[in-house]
Amino acid sequence: MMSVDRVHRFILTICCENRPGLVADIGQSVFEVGGDIIELHQFDDEDRQKFFCRLVFDCDAQAETIEPELRDSLGARGLSWQRQPEEGRLRVVVLLSKQDHCLNELLYQQHTGSLKINIVAIASNHPYEALSIPQIGDIPFFYLPVTAETKKVQEARIKKLCRDAEADLVILARYMQILSDDLVAFLEGRCINIHHSFLPGFKGAKPYHQAYARGVKMIGATAHYVTADLDEGPIIAQDVESLSHADLSHDLVRKGREIERRVLTRAVQSHADYRVFKNGCRTVVFQR
Amino acid sequence: MMSVDRVHRFILTICCENRPGLVADIGQSVFEVGGDIIELHQFDDEDRQKFFCRLVFDCDAQAETIEPELRDSLGARGLSWQRQPEEGRLRVVVLLSKQDHCLNELLYQQHTGSLKINIVAIASNHPYEALSIPQIGDIPFFYLPVTAETKKVQEARIKKLCRDAEADLVILARYMQILSDDLVAFLEGRCINIHHSFLPGFKGAKPYHQAYARGVKMIGATAHYVTADLDEGPIIAQDVESLSHADLSHDLVRKGREIERRVLTRAVQSHADYRVFKNGCRTVVFQR
Amino acid sequence: MMSVDRVHRFILTICCENRPGLVADIGQSVFEVGGDIIELHQFDDEDRQKFFCRLVFDCDAQAETIEPELRDSLGARGLSWQRQPEEGRLRVVVLLSKQDHCLNELLYQQHTGSLKINIVAIASNHPYEALSIPQIGDIPFFYLPVTAETKKVQEARIKKLCRDAEADLVILARYMQILSDDLVAFLEGRCINIHHSFLPGFKGAKPYHQAYARGVKMIGATAHYVTADLDEGPIIAQDVESLSHADLSHDLVRKGREIERRVLTRAVQSHADYRVFKNGCRTVVFQR
Amino acid sequence: MMSVDRVHRFILTICCENRPGLVADIGQSVFEVGGDIIELHQFDDEDRQKFFCRLVFDCDAQAETIEPELRDSLGARGLSWQRQPEEGRLRVVVLLSKQDHCLNELLYQQHTGSLKINIVAIASNHPYEALSIPQIGDIPFFYLPVTAETKKVQEARIKKLCRDAEADLVILARYMQILSDDLVAFLEGRCINIHHSFLPGFKGAKPYHQAYARGVKMIGATAHYVTADLDEGPIIAQDVESLSHADLSHDLVRKGREIERRVLTRAVQSHADYRVFKNGCRTVVFQR
Repeated sequence: MMSVDRVHRFILTICCENRPGLVADIGQSVFEVGGDIIELHQFDDEDRQKFFCRLVFDCDAQAETIEPELRDSLGARGLSWQRQPEEGRLRVVVLLSKQDHCLNELLYQQHTGSLKINIVAIASNHPYEALSIPQIGDIPFFYLPVTAETKKVQEARIKKLCRDAEADLVILARYMQILSDDLVAFLEGRCINIHHSFLPGFKGAKPYHQAYARGVKMIGATAHYVTADLDEGPIIAQDVESLSHADLSHDLVRKGREIERRVLTRAVQSHADYRVFKNGCRTVVFQR
Repeated sequence: MMSVDRVHRFILTICCENRPGLVADIGQSVFEVGGDIIELHQFDDEDRQKFFCRLVFDCDAQAETIEPELRDSLGARGLSWQRQPEEGRLRVVVLLSKQDHCLNELLYQQHTGSLKINIVAIASNHPYEALSIPQIGDIPFFYLPVTAETKKVQEARIKKLCRDAEADLVILARYMQILSDDLVAFLEGRCINIHHSFLPGFKGAKPYHQAYARGVKMIGATAHYVTADLDEGPIIAQDVESLSHADLSHDLVRKGREIERRVLTRAVQSHADYRVFKNGCRTVVFQR
Repeated sequence: MMSVDRVHRFILTICCENRPGLVADIGQSVFEVGGDIIELHQFDDEDRQKFFCRLVFDCDAQAETIEPELRDSLGARGLSWQRQPEEGRLRVVVLLSKQDHCLNELLYQQHTGSLKINIVAIASNHPYEALSIPQIGDIPFFYLPVTAETKKVQEARIKKLCRDAEADLVILARYMQILSDDLVAFLEGRCINIHHSFLPGFKGAKPYHQAYARGVKMIGATAHYVTADLDEGPIIAQDVESLSHADLSHDLVRKGREIERRVLTRAVQSHADYRVFKNGCRTVVFQR
Repeated sequence: MMSVDRVHRFILTICCENRPGLVADIGQSVFEVGGDIIELHQFDDEDRQKFFCRLVFDCDAQAETIEPELRDSLGARGLSWQRQPEEGRLRVVVLLSKQDHCLNELLYQQHTGSLKINIVAIASNHPYEALSIPQIGDIPFFYLPVTAETKKVQEARIKKLCRDAEADLVILARYMQILSDDLVAFLEGRCINIHHSFLPGFKGAKPYHQAYARGVKMIGATAHYVTADLDEGPIIAQDVESLSHADLSHDLVRKGREIERRVLTRAVQSHADYRVFKNGCRTVVFQR
């Protein structure tokens, strides 16, 4: 183990057009600022001629010293980085409706340290009293009811809330409202939704009831970035669980809760660890 | 272990309208013919008021003795059984097109005894030379080419083949032709297809290419009974496997082969073990 | 759906020496008291000549009426049942040490209704303040510190606690003390432990560190009934998760938490649903 | 798709003591010989201060041109590579005893192209007639019977066979003989064994019978490099499958076959794709 007060750890992610020499350039830039690369993943999408890279490096210097140096060094090689996180945690706003098992899980995983997030605000279109489980402690809760008439105003409040909270990430943790294109655009690239079906199967409403009716032998859940196309955003994580004929719709809902919270956690973990890159309607996810 | 030459093992399956007392009646009937029940699964579909039961029993008497007795005993209680298999194997006809990994697996699993089947004929719309892997030994192979014009004739040949082979089960092991409603009706309840997607996702042609384009993180396969509604028959088994961003369409095809053969084997095993009951557009599958 | 105020649902479990006619006898007994069997699983352990049966039946009559009748009817056929639960929940005492993720999960799953349990007391060899996560609400908490010298006294307090709480089940939810043979005997058949390794691998202390050192590619957890033989009790449930070379010991601990809570929940669910039978050093678990 | 006659694809693997600047050096070396890096994985074992790197690059030049250049370029930076494969396939010798399902699977996966191997010889301590399934075609088969007395001679024949066959890899595909330390040393780093248990559980003989007796709810298999310590070599891949109480020892053997062939295939695939590095008694495996 490194001694924590001497060495700092950084994550660097780069996404650009592919060209030969990129790895050498990046490696050189990191070396020049005194960094020692600990872990690196690189992948080319050959169809789209795109280059994706995530690397972790250790450095004696602090973020304030290293950032401008690294910016210059990479800049001189025609590179810019998508993000240069410190050891800090992402600032997260959670939106939900009545079902709160995903919120509960996010709070739990934040608490145990499995998720490098800091939930700074929670908002729901249902009042606080509708929450059954979660201990939200002193996290501010915003009740933002919505009707067809008030949708515009409500979304403006969501935007303001995200701005005020300086949200890095917005998680739709079973938020059962369809976002307007305007709000989607505002949240572009920093909004993850958990959909309670194994997409593209059972889009739309009541997927567990659809699944029961169809008689599938497995159900699943899908975490994806939110885009204007409902349930069509780039997928980050998916998982499934087996069913038996004895499982009725309400059993599917119950089993689904476990899958949803697991898949959402996995997606948020990858995102918060800077392992996910959007790539058109697909994603690149560098696994541990 | 029982001594094999004294005790015979039977599987009994019953599917009927539900009424109180059915388990007592069945248990009594088996007891009366001298049977000792080893394993029993029973399930009521309460919505549809249907009763499903599968049981295994041991008996000193042989099938010839026991069948009429059991028929009488159950009949006196208003019951008929769906099937009363001996220790024999199902007679199976396999249809395929060019891809032969599923056929290869069926032959392998028959050989090892994992599948209680006896493949009595193989037919393809491609010639024998198109087969790459399988050792079909002395199993008769039928080349049944088909065009839009000859479809009717070809299907008549398939019917004849199934009749001549006294097929208990027809397996579409990557048979890439759509069956006419007439042939589907002929094969009703005894025809299993393996579909190379996790239904209901990616119906239709080239599901792996669809899956790649959509950027899903898992692909799957589905084994189902064939019905007139394409890709909509009652599902027997499904499974999935994880993908990474580095998996291209041809990797999906490769990974898919593993899932397809596994799912098809599982479905055929359940069917051949008399564990599957059709229940409307769903199935009841009594797991081991 | 049945109308709840007219029909009552019962679970009946029977475990006895095998003999022909048992299913008929049980079916007849249930029929005689006016029961309609909804689901039945039966299994013979042929090596040990033991008969295991679990069935669910509906009945217009209430428990008070039906219990004596059923007792008589089964008794007349030489049968006694292991337990005849009502719609109620098991009364559960949870013991733990510092790690409280399993307690947290049990509380959550009780809340959502996935676990048909009622946690009536929580005890730890660490003070209440050591708990980090759980909302225990108004469940009584008992601080029962223990040293080598005070073990006898402490265990006497545990026994008293279980008696006072009328505990149906005691869950060792990461309770890091070895129980004396006396306490094990007291809790016989109603005490489930979660062990943080995939038994029989990595018995004893610090299994995740052992697993890291060995370089395994998967870790697991095991829920079992507690017996005098440490880590050797009948296994109820197990599961695993994949590792990569990048996972260090603390990652294994983190991943392990997920497996432990999942496996413990599954085991408690099966137990609370009367699906588990001890069978020597093994178990029979009738899956849904 | 690249046009194959213009661009060549190379895999480069490097394993050395860690020092800052390694990624830059490697990137630069590849760039200097005209290579374009398509995919790169890098990992530091911080405890052992070791650096592991695997990269894929495309290059217009052919292997003969590029190898000396790359050797010079890397050498000038103090680096040597472990191996520099072309598009060719590993030359593989398979050893087995009576059970031939793993051999069968290796042949199948070689045929479909999933395994980039070329089985150049098969040897068994049982005669050819003992093989039940596999189509070995024109692959030479060597019958090498062994007794306690002839072990030394037999192993000398195995060595000669591997030398003559210019084996890159020797696969123990259910070869039920313990290798002498001498033979292990000869095969060091290029010999993969499939063990039919989830190590470290159930070492030694008849693991499935041990597993049945213990009443585990999952069984597994383990593929590892062979070392002098029996069943203790660095693990490459593991997997498991669920059991039920109804599965007897012979069912475990049957289910085990599926796990063994799957795990062995996965391990050989990773090895043949140059994704596996030995790291003391552990392995680094860069997943796709």
